[in-house]
Amino acid sequence: MATLTTKTGQVVDRSILESLLRRRLFYFPAFEVYGGVSGLYDYGPPGCALQANIIDLWRKHFILEEDMLEVDTTMLTPHEVLKTSGHVDKFADWMCKDPKTGEIFRADHLVEEVLEARLRGDKEARGQQVQVDEEKEAKKKKKAKDTKAVKLDDAVVAEYEEVLAQIDNYDGEGLAELIKKYDIRNPRTDGPVLPPVAFNLMFQTSIGPSSNMPGYLRPETAQGQFLSFQKLLDFNQQQMPFASASIGKSFRNEISPRSGLLRVREFLMAEIEHFVDPEGGKKHPRFHEVQDEVLSLLSRDVQLSGSTQTEDMTIGKAVSTGLVDNETLGYFLARIQMFLLKIGVDRSKLRFRQHMLNEMAHYAADCWDAELLTSYGWIECVGCADRSAYDLTVHKNKTGAPLVVRETRAEPLKVEEWQIDIDKKKFGPRFKKDGKTVEAAIEALSQDLREKLALDLEKDGKIEIDVEGVGSGKVELDKDLIKIEKRTRIEHVREYTPNVIEPSFGIGRILYSLLEHSYWSRPEDEARGVLSFPPAVAPTKVLLVPLSNHESFRPLCQRLSMKLRRAGIASKVDDSSASIGKRYARNDELGTPFGITVDFQSVKDNTFTLRDRDTTKQVRASEEEILQAIKSLVDGEETWEDVRKRLPEFTGQELD
Amino acid sequence: MATLTTKTGQVVDRSILESLLRRRLFYFPAFEVYGGVSGLYDYGPPGCALQANIIDLWRKHFILEEDMLEVDTTMLTPHEVLKTSGHVDKFADWMCKDPKTGEIFRADHLVEEVLEARLRGDKEARGQQVQVDEEKEAKKKKKAKDTKAVKLDDAVVAEYEEVLAQIDNYDGEGLAELIKKYDIRNPRTDGPVLPPVAFNLMFQTSIGPSSNMPGYLRPETAQGQFLSFQKLLDFNQQQMPFASASIGKSFRNEISPRSGLLRVREFLMAEIEHFVDPEGGKKHPRFHEVQDEVLSLLSRDVQLSGSTQTEDMTIGKAVSTGLVDNETLGYFLARIQMFLLKIGVDRSKLRFRQHMLNEMAHYAADCWDAELLTSYGWIECVGCADRSAYDLTVHKNKTGAPLVVRETRAEPLKVEEWQIDIDKKKFGPRFKKDGKTVEAAIEALSQDLREKLALDLEKDGKIEIDVEGVGSGKVELDKDLIKIEKRTRIEHVREYTPNVIEPSFGIGRILYSLLEHSYWSRPEDEARGVLSFPPAVAPTKVLLVPLSNHESFRPLCQRLSMKLRRAGIASKVDDSSASIGKRYARNDELGTPFGITVDFQSVKDNTFTLRDRDTTKQVRASEEEILQAIKSLVDGEETWEDVRKRLPEFTGQELD
Repeated sequence: MATLTTKTGQVVDRSILESLLRRRLFYFPAFEVYGGVSGLYDYGPPGCALQANIIDLWRKHFILEEDMLEVDTTMLTPHEVLKTSGHVDKFADWMCKDPKTGEIFRADHLVEEVLEARLRGDKEARGQQVQVDEEKEAKKKKKAKDTKAVKLDDAVVAEYEEVLAQIDNYDGEGLAELIKKYDIRNPRTDGPVLPPVAFNLMFQTSIGPSSNMPGYLRPETAQGQFLSFQKLLDFNQQQMPFASASIGKSFRNEISPRSGLLRVREFLMAEIEHFVDPEGGKKHPRFHEVQDEVLSLLSRDVQLSGSTQTEDMTIGKAVSTGLVDNETLGYFLARIQMFLLKIGVDRSKLRFRQHMLNEMAHYAADCWDAELLTSYGWIECVGCADRSAYDLTVHKNKTGAPLVVRETRAEPLKVEEWQIDIDKKKFGPRFKKDGKTVEAAIEALSQDLREKLALDLEKDGKIEIDVEGVGSGKVELDKDLIKIEKRTRIEHVREYTPNVIEPSFGIGRILYSLLEHSYWSRPEDEARGVLSFPPAVAPTKVLLVPLSNHESFRPLCQRLSMKLRRAGIASKVDDSSASIGKRYARNDELGTPFGITVDFQSVKDNTFTLRDRDTTKQVRASEEEILQAIKSLVDGEETWEDVRKRLPEFTGQELD
Repeated sequence: MATLTTKTGQVVDRSILESLLRRRLFYFPAFEVYGGVSGLYDYGPPGCALQANIIDLWRKHFILEEDMLEVDTTMLTPHEVLKTSGHVDKFADWMCKDPKTGEIFRADHLVEEVLEARLRGDKEARGQQVQVDEEKEAKKKKKAKDTKAVKLDDAVVAEYEEVLAQIDNYDGEGLAELIKKYDIRNPRTDGPVLPPVAFNLMFQTSIGPSSNMPGYLRPETAQGQFLSFQKLLDFNQQQMPFASASIGKSFRNEISPRSGLLRVREFLMAEIEHFVDPEGGKKHPRFHEVQDEVLSLLSRDVQLSGSTQTEDMTIGKAVSTGLVDNETLGYFLARIQMFLLKIGVDRSKLRFRQHMLNEMAHYAADCWDAELLTSYGWIECVGCADRSAYDLTVHKNKTGAPLVVRETRAEPLKVEEWQIDIDKKKFGPRFKKDGKTVEAAIEALSQDLREKLALDLEKDGKIEIDVEGVGSGKVELDKDLIKIEKRTRIEHVREYTPNVIEPSFGIGRILYSLLEHSYWSRPEDEARGVLSFPPAVAPTKVLLVPLSNHESFRPLCQRLSMKLRRAGIASKVDDSSASIGKRYARNDELGTPFGITVDFQSVKDNTFTLRDRDTTKQVRASEEEILQAIKSLVDGEETWEDVRKRLPEFTGQELD
């Protein structure tokens, strides 16, 4: 991989950026005075404002622009809901325990760490230079035994490299085999580890005073939206398609979080669930508006061939060639890109990667991730999946709730189908409280299965069907209870379960990537970092800098503050005793795009200088002109270049 | 209590309002298709927008206006933090179990329910009319045995009434006595209940893969702010006073939640921690700006006298007479009122109630609640407490972190004091990992105690001090380890722990109260409800209503939508086939303040009618004039009366 550079071509040094972010209180480890808890971070004022501004733009770009129905649903979630959604059984990572020390490792990370160490040892033994990932190295210095310079067979090296390339694809059994085959041990003590066991990543708790209602903190906001589907459809006056959206925290009990904000236990998500009719090719009425947007795509086929070469392509072409499954999915990919660019993501560090077939949930039709390039590599920041009808179907089957759309047909439809009649009188007494569940399971039987069951019922006088959660999971039904017949039905109303296209944004990951993409330092002084946020997301838009503590500056600063506040523009006064240059340098690190200097000239004639963060150029004009220029810069109606051309340049002031 | 009425003098009927809120999807029970979980609610689109607008105004009114430092801290909180803050030991309610049925009751609610039932039975027996709280009655019909008409002695009636009046003041022992004395039983089965036990109201979970890091979901956002104090003070360049603020969810595992949004298990809070120097009377530099604000105050003394009569008083007078403890507390009370009125709270249903001494935490200096009158009675919606230096002190003592302010003295100070010297060489090896804790405990010893300990050390050659969490909780220190001497010190730097004034807002409670305060129905048709939100908080500001589905209206609606969106004004188009009157009625229930009708005249001459929700009056003018009027109405620069006077009235259209 090529060295990662800033917009200005400087090499990205993560440790310098991290020290800036800490110093300026963008974010920091939570509970630090208590020693901290890994995977938990707090946002200080600039991080908090940056996050709020990203969310505000997100809301405007998606919810307002597309009339989405925003909901705010509960984080605490009862067991049953997440059992149905599959999270109780499948939302897990594999962990290994060292029985002697009690240490717990995430199995894939352990394999990775050990094999990488061996490959490094091999390189050393061969006298090659070892590429050092500083963070990893620093950790190892503290904890692990030194890498041993041991030469490996070429074949072993190739094997290790292949394993590492697809480490994400191993399940528990696969990881257990690797650990056995390669004798993977605790790198700290060299002691053996137990075989991997599944560790569910949801935080568990108990709702209410007795412990009989287990619950979890939600792992995604999506389920709350699915459960409200029927209500939202009503609210939308039965009109399809429509989207719901939700912004809120979700939780993931990571085994051993690392990589700062990129892998945390509590995180802000913004998720859209776009409900669409599965028939008619999932067209989107506004697709033509985005069809010329060029995306950098990394397709499944290219990845299969072992390459990571992206291809630039209009989304129109990607959909028409079938690379992207349908217009609705394509529409959202384009809109996601437009959003990311709007908040300041570097276009050259953005790609859309298609999921491999084994990465996708079995029900998904297609899935693309918007990935951002950071010093940690390419990071998934937005997932955009076609979840098909999976979630609505499982909840409908479990609860019997009508999570469907009913649409009057223009022309009635004749349907030949296998129908099942239930003898309600006998059914109730027979199944009692399980009745609804059994009925839902019968309702959910496919036509093919019904045909087969009809024959069995005819032959044996009884059939057996699967009903999860009732008795042994199998329920016997005899001729007295049900009847299965092929009949013709005239369908006036079409009933269908919508498919769901889900763009899902990890706000913390986007925020961190944006920090990396925005960072550079003044070529004349490396210690002077700058965060070049676009004005719309910058935590503070304007810094007000009085030349000194002189009394006469105060009313001017107050008046400017008040006028900016009325215009809805966030500003700060820095009247500390540091030099003007120092004060501006501090605010370059905070990403404040504009500065107004208040000096003795200002007191005399009410003119002010306006400074641009990125160029450090200044103009000077009347109060009214300066405020108007700021408003138009913040609203994105003018660029600094526009302003600089029309207002007189100012060069008089020494800034350092 | 007088009957609760709407702004228009109608009697508030909660069941009608609740049905409206459900129908219009303001909020609804979470997980309803799974049977729901009590105390958990989801917000639908209008509720979500209302909440977002309240938060937006809150942020402008408090954070931006006062340059507060906003932080976003973690909900998951390790045990140790909440142990120190006192929540692990004291954040509990008392619960009683029926050993036979397994039912669990909140002890005070149980006593209340049973005694109230007996008082009702007494009234019935005396042939008096029983005042019926419909909700309670409905519940009882389902669950409880019928009230028995049994006459009680007059003395018993008086006793019951006294108990009920102060039911909030009983602790576990007190409740146990009541249950025994009055033979309180399970009202459903008449079976006995066990004595009350404390139930901690925090949701517990486990952080990380091993179960050795217990944690909780935070019960308030405050602790995260306290722990960041040092960082925030640095960020603020050591300037005092300053405030931090945080908006986020907190959790409370209620034993048996009831009263809808007023008592829930997961709720949005907005909390301010204003850090102030305890010396100098806690003056506030902007107090003069608010001193003439008149508040309706219910003082501690009046409550003690058995009355609930409020007194209207300027906050200036309340502070100068000492009724409100200090300027900073008074400043925030006034600002809280201004905020509540701004979002549309009914001034006649707002009061500030001072906490009784036994209601306050032992460390609090003073505490006032902003209470809003609803159909459930007066509800605490904002608490405003002076938490003194309690929280910073306990965290400092526990961790040794310097959660203090250090200020250079204008003139050095001579201090006579007892100093303790520690022999670091012996201290480390003696206490090992506990060293820091023991040292912090020594540091925290008061001057009085030091004097006594100096004598003991002199006499016995050793002393014993309390150190929580180390060994048995007692640590012995001998002459070799420490020395205690009275010395004179010249203090150039003053070090102090700031006091904290904490305005804490329950957003859900405010939102629900606001819904009640905003609701009324058209006098000519009771079924037509209206929610009269101020434009600033209304979920949608403008409804666009084309006269019919006619093609020619569509481009006009689209253009108006786009122009409103650009102006940052949320609008909706309703082009359903319902009559104009029905569409407006629907949006009166959603609280949409303005409506634009698009008709054939609009197509011809680009004029539109603008309708006001509250008066249903309309004006007609050009597109530009209408849009300008809406902008100025939403920004609060003009009232409808202003607009109506300057634009031509329109009466032509039939709305029903």
